[in-house]
Amino acid sequence: MNHEIQLVERPTAAPSHEHIKIVETEKPEPAQGEVLVKLLYVSVDPYMRGRMSNAKSYIAPFQLNEPMEGGVVGEVVQSKADSLSEGDIITGMLPWQEFTTAKADTLRKIDPELGPITTSLGILGMPGLTAYFGLMDIGQPKEGETLVVSGAAGAVGSTVVQIGKIAGCHVVGIAGSDEKTAYLKNELGVDEAINYKTEDVPSRLEAACPNGVDVYFDNVGGEISDAVYPLLNKFARIAQCGAISSYNVPNAQGPRMQSYLIKSSALIKGFTVGDYQERFNEGFNHLSKWLKEGRLTYEETITEGFENIPDAFFGLFEGTNLGKQLVKVSAPSNS
Amino acid sequence: MNHEIQLVERPTAAPSHEHIKIVETEKPEPAQGEVLVKLLYVSVDPYMRGRMSNAKSYIAPFQLNEPMEGGVVGEVVQSKADSLSEGDIITGMLPWQEFTTAKADTLRKIDPELGPITTSLGILGMPGLTAYFGLMDIGQPKEGETLVVSGAAGAVGSTVVQIGKIAGCHVVGIAGSDEKTAYLKNELGVDEAINYKTEDVPSRLEAACPNGVDVYFDNVGGEISDAVYPLLNKFARIAQCGAISSYNVPNAQGPRMQSYLIKSSALIKGFTVGDYQERFNEGFNHLSKWLKEGRLTYEETITEGFENIPDAFFGLFEGTNLGKQLVKVSAPSNS
Repeated sequence: MNHEIQLVERPTAAPSHEHIKIVETEKPEPAQGEVLVKLLYVSVDPYMRGRMSNAKSYIAPFQLNEPMEGGVVGEVVQSKADSLSEGDIITGMLPWQEFTTAKADTLRKIDPELGPITTSLGILGMPGLTAYFGLMDIGQPKEGETLVVSGAAGAVGSTVVQIGKIAGCHVVGIAGSDEKTAYLKNELGVDEAINYKTEDVPSRLEAACPNGVDVYFDNVGGEISDAVYPLLNKFARIAQCGAISSYNVPNAQGPRMQSYLIKSSALIKGFTVGDYQERFNEGFNHLSKWLKEGRLTYEETITEGFENIPDAFFGLFEGTNLGKQLVKVSAPSNS
Repeated sequence: MNHEIQLVERPTAAPSHEHIKIVETEKPEPAQGEVLVKLLYVSVDPYMRGRMSNAKSYIAPFQLNEPMEGGVVGEVVQSKADSLSEGDIITGMLPWQEFTTAKADTLRKIDPELGPITTSLGILGMPGLTAYFGLMDIGQPKEGETLVVSGAAGAVGSTVVQIGKIAGCHVVGIAGSDEKTAYLKNELGVDEAINYKTEDVPSRLEAACPNGVDVYFDNVGGEISDAVYPLLNKFARIAQCGAISSYNVPNAQGPRMQSYLIKSSALIKGFTVGDYQERFNEGFNHLSKWLKEGRLTYEETITEGFENIPDAFFGLFEGTNLGKQLVKVSAPSNS
């Protein structure tokens, strides 16, 4: 027996169980050049909300009545490809099916000796690379500058704040619970942490950024960003990574911000990690070096069970996760 | 006798006569190193609206009960400086006083043989340089790309569209009257011109940009920009020069646009011409070469009379000007 998670209706606001169905299917047969993969860990990410809509974007929409997909770690349980063997641990973009087939050359083999296999979905995967390239290429932080990070306790944000400290910045993190702000201050070493659910963000930000804001790494958009724009310094850089506050709000409205950009000659650049595909090795090398040196750390929030993937995904929009949100589907055979 | 135009109250919405007063004063005496200047032409520009407010910006606010100031062309009528003589035509940033004094080294002497003296306030002045640097440095137009320009029939926009054609772009200009769109099509050679006051901008833009939008030179912000964002191509560049639609609207609201930037990995960069001060010669050289070659042309809307400066300025927000809006204060002595 096999199960898959299908998109059955496109949400217009927050995604919920009515949009998603768990369907019983058959275990597929790998063709020549393919492998059969058992899912071990599934990554759920805010960007997937965009794929549930039918709008033109940088990545194709999910199809109705087809499985959703995303980054996973899995184990090869049957191989019809020379490059992979039974028992190999791989990562790739795969459908949300407990057992799934894939062409071997679309997967990357993980060496479990190098560290926990889940890091390939987090700090040594897309979130880590997103943090690295967005901050270094767009933000271009300089020693002594002020870096503000929204969604600072998430998978991307928690990496950004740490790279910001490595770069010598005054780092201000914004997150949605006292547990998260304590984590930012005590574990990640940010200079100031703001709980946007209980504190007045504009006044706290102004106090936390006495020299203004030089770099803003934005995961959330919305009212938090509205509070950052007036503080931008001349030639400030904003890496627009996400806008999770707007994803579930059709036609979200807010103050127009163009005048702030003109006043400060500031830059906003949207990006996705795929823009940097040709430089992924540079990113991996920096991230794994910092990780080995103990200059980077990470947290994971792991939900158990294939059937709980939807709830783990919905929880991203409530901010229930600290660090990288994963779902453990099953254990590797050798563990 | 002398007159000056003072700011007497800060506007919160549209500026009007209640905010400005014409005051009779005495003709000033130049000190050593200074000259006495008779104003010939005064430039009125949208950015001056920002200086009427007290908010922090790239340029200091006008002071209450002090003269407003801006770019002018004037004639030296008395000199106590070695570098300038009576009869010299100069340009500089000077107060709105019929007769005013200035340190000679803050003024630039114009050679009237090289062309009409008003061009130093237009195509060979700040508006021309603004167009050149915003388009070339931020927009980076490439042959065959689509360039959209808002405020396309103004002093800056009309230069941008022409440089866009020189760069080999498909150029779409947006302006506010049939006279202006006819000018854009017939005189400036744009490929498509849209009258935003009478046409449906979103549908007309979509039809005018069958290959999407690669570069957007934005003078206006607001609803016109809202219609451009959904059409942005991957890696599009927006030069945010102005946002005139919002200047007179306190707390202007609109759709949040961060998601569009993420979807297209697009960039918005605010700027002011002063950011490029060290490259002004490069800009002058290109603009004057193109002007001589007949590849650039320009229009001026000239209002007569010092006392009509306020109305000429207010008119910018109604879009009454075609090309550069100037006020002629008096004629040069030798004309």
